[in-house]
Amino acid sequence: MEIDQTSYRTIWPAQDGWRVQIIDQTCLPHELVILELETVEAVAEAIKVMRVRGAPLIGAAAAYGVAVAMYEDSTTENLERAVTLLGSTRPTAVNLHWALDDMRSRLFPLEANEREATAYLRAAEICNEDVEINRRIGKHTLPLIECIAATKATGEPVNILTHCNAGWLATVDWGTATSGIYQAYNAGIAVHVWVDETRPRNQGASLTAWELGHHGVPHTVIADNAGGHLMQHGKVDLCITGTDRTTASGDVANKIGTYLKALAADDNSVPFYVALPSPTIDWTLDDGMADIPIEERDGAEVTNMTGLTADGRIETVRIVPDGSPAANPAFDVTPARLVTGLVTERGIADASREGLSKLFPERA
Amino acid sequence: MEIDQTSYRTIWPAQDGWRVQIIDQTCLPHELVILELETVEAVAEAIKVMRVRGAPLIGAAAAYGVAVAMYEDSTTENLERAVTLLGSTRPTAVNLHWALDDMRSRLFPLEANEREATAYLRAAEICNEDVEINRRIGKHTLPLIECIAATKATGEPVNILTHCNAGWLATVDWGTATSGIYQAYNAGIAVHVWVDETRPRNQGASLTAWELGHHGVPHTVIADNAGGHLMQHGKVDLCITGTDRTTASGDVANKIGTYLKALAADDNSVPFYVALPSPTIDWTLDDGMADIPIEERDGAEVTNMTGLTADGRIETVRIVPDGSPAANPAFDVTPARLVTGLVTERGIADASREGLSKLFPERA
Repeated sequence: MEIDQTSYRTIWPAQDGWRVQIIDQTCLPHELVILELETVEAVAEAIKVMRVRGAPLIGAAAAYGVAVAMYEDSTTENLERAVTLLGSTRPTAVNLHWALDDMRSRLFPLEANEREATAYLRAAEICNEDVEINRRIGKHTLPLIECIAATKATGEPVNILTHCNAGWLATVDWGTATSGIYQAYNAGIAVHVWVDETRPRNQGASLTAWELGHHGVPHTVIADNAGGHLMQHGKVDLCITGTDRTTASGDVANKIGTYLKALAADDNSVPFYVALPSPTIDWTLDDGMADIPIEERDGAEVTNMTGLTADGRIETVRIVPDGSPAANPAFDVTPARLVTGLVTERGIADASREGLSKLFPERA
Repeated sequence: MEIDQTSYRTIWPAQDGWRVQIIDQTCLPHELVILELETVEAVAEAIKVMRVRGAPLIGAAAAYGVAVAMYEDSTTENLERAVTLLGSTRPTAVNLHWALDDMRSRLFPLEANEREATAYLRAAEICNEDVEINRRIGKHTLPLIECIAATKATGEPVNILTHCNAGWLATVDWGTATSGIYQAYNAGIAVHVWVDETRPRNQGASLTAWELGHHGVPHTVIADNAGGHLMQHGKVDLCITGTDRTTASGDVANKIGTYLKALAADDNSVPFYVALPSPTIDWTLDDGMADIPIEERDGAEVTNMTGLTADGRIETVRIVPDGSPAANPAFDVTPARLVTGLVTERGIADASREGLSKLFPERA
């Protein structure tokens, strides 16, 4: 997508062909910092401290981490060392381990002197595959937006609510939930996005608002509490979120609070779509509520807040009284009955075993 | 209620009998500051900048403001000046104008030399009436908590979720939603409160958590997004909130986000009660969604956050990118169909015209 009229991906090889460049997302939304990573340790650190985040982007970064390692030393020992180091950064990230297994299985059988070139090619391919998947998700989302736009008076925008950041910053490009929004905007359709702040980590306020704003998409940040009220008053035409994990029956685990928006959408007959690349479907799971373990994160994410002071310093402030504990479940499960449809790279499926099986008969 | 084993109200006359003391709520939750107000201007400023807030407390403060004015100068001119000054502080606060009308109508007919004593007596009476109303609301809430406690294993607490601050800090004492919780706690019943942070003004994280903690009530602060997930997993036994305005048909306008919690409670069969003094019922309104205008507040409440730095300074930080606008509807309307019951000083009413008429036949 664009940052102030210049096209970017979230990760790309530097002009020298071997260093890796990323947008340092820990500096957003207050500063755009491009980092150049030239060791596998630097790539591992970037994943660990979330300079890059979002499942697809973590996978792409890990692949480039292996490539940088092969540039440094293409021995089998170093390949194993790189895979182990990168794999330890975010132990529960499924895409990370998928990408590392993919790289390792391709590079291991090769002669040492063939590994570097193959690694860079495969890392680039992983990136391109992600871009293509997200482009297709957007292609299938676009008609939903076009249909609503057709019912609007000239210039009146289609109002779309999203939660958290399922934007291009979480992927290599396009994003999942945002892909159709960018494609609609690029096609000249009037859109306006309600951006949920997404407490406690504020990914909506800090990342989604930033990326939409710099691409030029009209948007408004709202407290997570506000979405239901907006839906009651007809100010939301469509909800689109991403998902971290989807069951074979169409239940959706996503950022905490998604379930509340799905309830409000249902209560106000607002369509609620979830955009996902099909690899995030866990075909072994049936009942999302019972089967998906929910990560409990550090309460400090609730009690403390980081931002920019009026005089330009980044500060962290405590917003909860000393001595009050905080709980921080990171995800919730939205049952399939509240999901209007699952937008995948193959098209839109009903949020049900039948719906998903129709689109992915090879998994049924 | 208690602050670290010492009993307090939110407003009280000083030992000299004429100055007025308040807890400066703008310093909470990081510092307990008791202010002594000795001019009507100081009382007006305290109301205006929300050193005192919450409908009942604003009314009580306005009454004491008139009393202080009568101590200074009990002429009719000064009475009128005080009423006008205090009335301009929070133009839309219903209780403020009710208290000022009450004071003015009692003092106006009197001789100037009778006004001071009458004003202080009536201000004290207004405070005591508020305390008694809230005590009764709590008395009617207590059996709801006792019934759930009876189903629990020994020591297992009744888990109650609340939103915003309908606590003793919003009233003279007890609070509305919290009154039954304090009464249960004081009676030795094991309770635990899930405190919604309540973005964007954080009244839950800063005020409700503070008052519960200093009285000794076990509680946990959560992001507004988390309540639905907790209800899905059986971790909430009961929701109790306050309300700013209730229609004759039982629709409830309360802090933005209340509606989302009511939806989640309904979806998970968790009882959802709203506690209110009967004067907040607007008998002229029927359809809350159509009839209650919702205040749109400054977007800076969403984009900026104030708290305590690690080295003890109060700082305000921006959490939204420069250039991203924010919307800030302050309240939403929870339709009566989602409300299990309205807890008033006379007992619990069904959230319906019939239910309210039964308890308040004189208004039916």
